[in-house]
Amino acid sequence: MVDEQQVHQALREVKHPESGRSLMELGMIRDIRVDDKQVGFTVVLPFMNVPIKDQIVNEARAAVEGLPGVEGVDVELAEMTQQERARFMAAQEKRAGLAEQFNHIQHVIAVVSGKGGVGKSLVAGLLAVALRREGHKVGVLDADITGPSIPKMFFPTQRHPRNSPMGILPVESETGIKIMSINLLLPREDEAVIWRGPLISTAIKQFWGDVLWGDLDYLVVDLPPGTADASLTVMQSIPLSGIVLVTSPQDLAAMVVKKAARMAQTMGVPILGVIENMSYVICPDTGKQWELFGPSKAETMAAQLGVPLLGRLPIDPQIARLCDEGRIEEYQSEAFIAIAKRLAEMAPKPKRSLFYQP
Amino acid sequence: MVDEQQVHQALREVKHPESGRSLMELGMIRDIRVDDKQVGFTVVLPFMNVPIKDQIVNEARAAVEGLPGVEGVDVELAEMTQQERARFMAAQEKRAGLAEQFNHIQHVIAVVSGKGGVGKSLVAGLLAVALRREGHKVGVLDADITGPSIPKMFFPTQRHPRNSPMGILPVESETGIKIMSINLLLPREDEAVIWRGPLISTAIKQFWGDVLWGDLDYLVVDLPPGTADASLTVMQSIPLSGIVLVTSPQDLAAMVVKKAARMAQTMGVPILGVIENMSYVICPDTGKQWELFGPSKAETMAAQLGVPLLGRLPIDPQIARLCDEGRIEEYQSEAFIAIAKRLAEMAPKPKRSLFYQP
Repeated sequence: MVDEQQVHQALREVKHPESGRSLMELGMIRDIRVDDKQVGFTVVLPFMNVPIKDQIVNEARAAVEGLPGVEGVDVELAEMTQQERARFMAAQEKRAGLAEQFNHIQHVIAVVSGKGGVGKSLVAGLLAVALRREGHKVGVLDADITGPSIPKMFFPTQRHPRNSPMGILPVESETGIKIMSINLLLPREDEAVIWRGPLISTAIKQFWGDVLWGDLDYLVVDLPPGTADASLTVMQSIPLSGIVLVTSPQDLAAMVVKKAARMAQTMGVPILGVIENMSYVICPDTGKQWELFGPSKAETMAAQLGVPLLGRLPIDPQIARLCDEGRIEEYQSEAFIAIAKRLAEMAPKPKRSLFYQP
Repeated sequence: MVDEQQVHQALREVKHPESGRSLMELGMIRDIRVDDKQVGFTVVLPFMNVPIKDQIVNEARAAVEGLPGVEGVDVELAEMTQQERARFMAAQEKRAGLAEQFNHIQHVIAVVSGKGGVGKSLVAGLLAVALRREGHKVGVLDADITGPSIPKMFFPTQRHPRNSPMGILPVESETGIKIMSINLLLPREDEAVIWRGPLISTAIKQFWGDVLWGDLDYLVVDLPPGTADASLTVMQSIPLSGIVLVTSPQDLAAMVVKKAARMAQTMGVPILGVIENMSYVICPDTGKQWELFGPSKAETMAAQLGVPLLGRLPIDPQIARLCDEGRIEEYQSEAFIAIAKRLAEMAPKPKRSLFYQP
């Protein structure tokens, strides 16, 4: 009755809801099996939990069920290999971001350090929380593709984004902060994303252009360490109001953070100010302030760069614990509210149009 | 008398001492000026302090001085732009590493964390120091191209490598550890290296194939955070004996470190063990041990990965200070000697030939 050729043809007509390209062309259909009136095939997804999974499966199933002579359709699911995912994303990149035209984002502030582990993601998270407390509409774009920390701070359990016809819907936090991160797309939060630069750049561009951020007063972008692909793509493709530099009191950190500052200067991105993290710790037994990593050098760095020192933050075991538990929004920090207010006043509207096409 | 064409021709004959390609072809000669018997030109270097600078300048000068009618040669120096450097490095990559055939390296241990700032470079440095104290011949390859920390730990002032006909000579530390890092090639240690992935990969391959390491018992490789280009290139192009995973007590760190572990497993690289850094701190006033970042999770992680827990290290303000002053070799750590001994026993000889051509 039905033959493989007909199934092929029917599935060729099914389009990816985001890119409008055929699922067959995108390499998303595999192992078509025809056994008399029973048809089976495998839908291959870039990640097991992409928000449009059900939509794709239902449309593919319906297309085959509609063929004369078909009585049952068995759809299996599989995840793409790294290589298949690379091809898939390259194919997806060819279209422009649809969601972007529905987004109205007033200010985009990137949090940058160059050096890892100085608390960049923590500052990005706290900044978003403080701006939200001040009543602003806030989003966080996690541009750290290979070491994403943002979802873990905001959500106690693994969350996944939903999809809309206009683009991916960011996941909303307890207080209504919109969050997008590669870790929200992974089946397990500790799965590795082993990608070379071009794929990392594509993912970041999609987080900007294919995510339906809607109306935001502030989008906070958390950058990974280093001055390679991710940083370059953010500074080149996203219209930034400016960056906040995060440093720590160690000379070693300061040296690497200065590299990031030079990068921003080279790329013509304004530096809004410096925040020193891990400045000191309050000893729980004596209550004394202890400069664990040596005396602060933040004033000097800010002066050298000609930008304000926005604040010095202690190492606080409570915040470490809240971040580990996905409860960063419960942290009370007067110091940070002051920093957020100051940044809110400083952040200019981005020079480039927000309808910029990367 | 002499004309520009002749100068062009003479300079075309001058070959780059490493690649054997013409300086003209490599884009290293610019602005040839002929004024009667005076000739001038500009030599453009990838970095102002490349070790073969003098050799290149002298050979170019000699070639022009040898032309009949030339009485004076004026050579100016300039540094390549990011784009010129990219082209130059792509051209250089086409040849195989000459130095590699002179190197005999017994074991290559990469120090990896996935997460930044957990003390990966510190562990790499201390491991090298401890292996050296045990009498081994040791080198450190700093594969963190955009955030290199190794030179700052070992050298109080900026150092530059020299060159030999067989390759770049690594810079030797006080106790004789051979070190190669992008920061040794930069005019200033805080200059930014704004490179996308392919250039980062090329630089790492050159540190392996074009550096004259000579005879080494152990080469310690310090990897950057993340599971992108640098990590991929090290795991694919350098024959590793295995990796040491560095983590910290925060869940957030553990999650990202597990991504690095999965990457190593995917790439078939053995994990030799786990080291937990920042495990605790000794309060200076009370002498009490304080788990600043929460209780240790290192045992659990090591058990999950089925590898030994090699040790737990405290946050030690003294080591932070010594690292900032380029005096890491003065740090006395019995704990680390024990870790190094254990690793030395465990590290297998790499499976692949060390004459492997990337």
